[in-house]
Amino acid sequence: MIVRRLAVVGVGLIGGSLARALREAGEVGEVVGCGRGRENLERGVALGVIDRWTHSVAEAVDGADLVFVAVPLGAMRGAFAAMRDHLAPDAVVTDGGSAKASVVTDARAALGARIASFVPGHPIAGTERTGVEASFAALYRNRRVILTPLSETAPAATQRVEAMWRACGAEVTTMSVEHHDEVLAATSHLPHMLAFGLVDALARLKENDEIFRYAAGGFRDFTRIASSSPVMWRDICVANRDALSRMLERFAEEMNDLADTIRRGDGDHLLEIFGRAKAARDRYVDGMRGEE
Amino acid sequence: MIVRRLAVVGVGLIGGSLARALREAGEVGEVVGCGRGRENLERGVALGVIDRWTHSVAEAVDGADLVFVAVPLGAMRGAFAAMRDHLAPDAVVTDGGSAKASVVTDARAALGARIASFVPGHPIAGTERTGVEASFAALYRNRRVILTPLSETAPAATQRVEAMWRACGAEVTTMSVEHHDEVLAATSHLPHMLAFGLVDALARLKENDEIFRYAAGGFRDFTRIASSSPVMWRDICVANRDALSRMLERFAEEMNDLADTIRRGDGDHLLEIFGRAKAARDRYVDGMRGEE
Repeated sequence: MIVRRLAVVGVGLIGGSLARALREAGEVGEVVGCGRGRENLERGVALGVIDRWTHSVAEAVDGADLVFVAVPLGAMRGAFAAMRDHLAPDAVVTDGGSAKASVVTDARAALGARIASFVPGHPIAGTERTGVEASFAALYRNRRVILTPLSETAPAATQRVEAMWRACGAEVTTMSVEHHDEVLAATSHLPHMLAFGLVDALARLKENDEIFRYAAGGFRDFTRIASSSPVMWRDICVANRDALSRMLERFAEEMNDLADTIRRGDGDHLLEIFGRAKAARDRYVDGMRGEE
Repeated sequence: MIVRRLAVVGVGLIGGSLARALREAGEVGEVVGCGRGRENLERGVALGVIDRWTHSVAEAVDGADLVFVAVPLGAMRGAFAAMRDHLAPDAVVTDGGSAKASVVTDARAALGARIASFVPGHPIAGTERTGVEASFAALYRNRRVILTPLSETAPAATQRVEAMWRACGAEVTTMSVEHHDEVLAATSHLPHMLAFGLVDALARLKENDEIFRYAAGGFRDFTRIASSSPVMWRDICVANRDALSRMLERFAEEMNDLADTIRRGDGDHLLEIFGRAKAARDRYVDGMRGEE
């Protein structure tokens, strides 16, 4: 059994799905849930996701050999600070935050010497739903998990977290904190900004009801991610503000160039851009066939 | 029977699906297909979408009481010019172009006095697939069709086109050419530019293979429309260049503002933007429930 006692700090889609996947794999003994919402925690027990719960982080990590922190990025530092003096000597701590530099700053500030037990992580998986009710054991199957171990991180800690994610069916890779934040800014944070930005821009138009009425299927797919949690995305933006604001500005510049190209009616250049994009999209989807 | 003989100029997803839907409704006698690709036309006959075919527009419209032009926007003017002197006296002409001002300019220039028989139209439906093989009878069911009749258009012609689309299960509304082009720039053309632009920007990065590897489900949905036909979108951009380039520039400005907000770490403002977008997206999807 990879995990004797798992403490899940933040029992939502991400934390709940990890618990479910480890249970299904027979790789966890006991699961202790920690969170603020009593109803959600009781639901977690009723669903068999967690065995028991507490509102106290200190209590939750007591005796746990693996601690998974799946709270919003803005609540990470507080969670680390609350657990530091209560971690078992063999406890390994990992997290599921979508931006890593800010989590690492928080962990360094709050975990003190226990930073050696910390393995920053990010499972690239999720849906637009939230709460323990939305969790399911297969969420991480055939998905990628990125770990960004620090120079202080004990290699054995990284190995345990890797083994845990593999048991959930995920593929684990490691990279630097900085590289993670750039890759994610490009593939996840920027698209979310465009979707939120587009829907907000249309919503602010006077005739917005009419405009949404004439939107077709493509618009529905394109804007699905604008239904994601506003609080989570506020935290991600603030946490990854440098990489993300730079990327947004670069994208705005490219959209101004595209506007020029369109205004000039330069069909050859448009065909080049659209053709390159279609080829990349089709190649990428081919690479994921079976998942779509 | 609403249509005695239908001429479909351009037998692809849009034209083929109209023929199939009218057949299924029992509202068309004969369907004549016209296009350039012999193989596609023969496939259309084999699939029962069209009864016979010709490469000549003049021959295709001969004796037809309804002519549906579903060629790329860049080929509209040529199609109108080729049919003008061969239209039956009672023939009504309509089209499926995604931008209306350019089609109307082409029709006015090429149809001469027969402009009275022309009803500009746009069915808001489609998939990323192309060709007669991709066509299906249900494409227009519960979808919206926008007609933009001109001051010269005979009211009886508009009524026949409305009846034809209703027989396919579509909901028909009319608006001005200018309003159509603005609404479509916002709900369809702009999102396509963002998806094409994002995928192209990522494809041009050095480590693009790695970047696409870490993209998750949200990215897949968000970029689906970047798999659309580059030729069709080049034509749409050129045809709707004024409304679209203005809209792109305005959007680029908003993305620069958003980058500022993120860099300042103004969480309250971010929450306001994301919350408004999520509320609009959720309300809009609620309004379409059953279609998603």
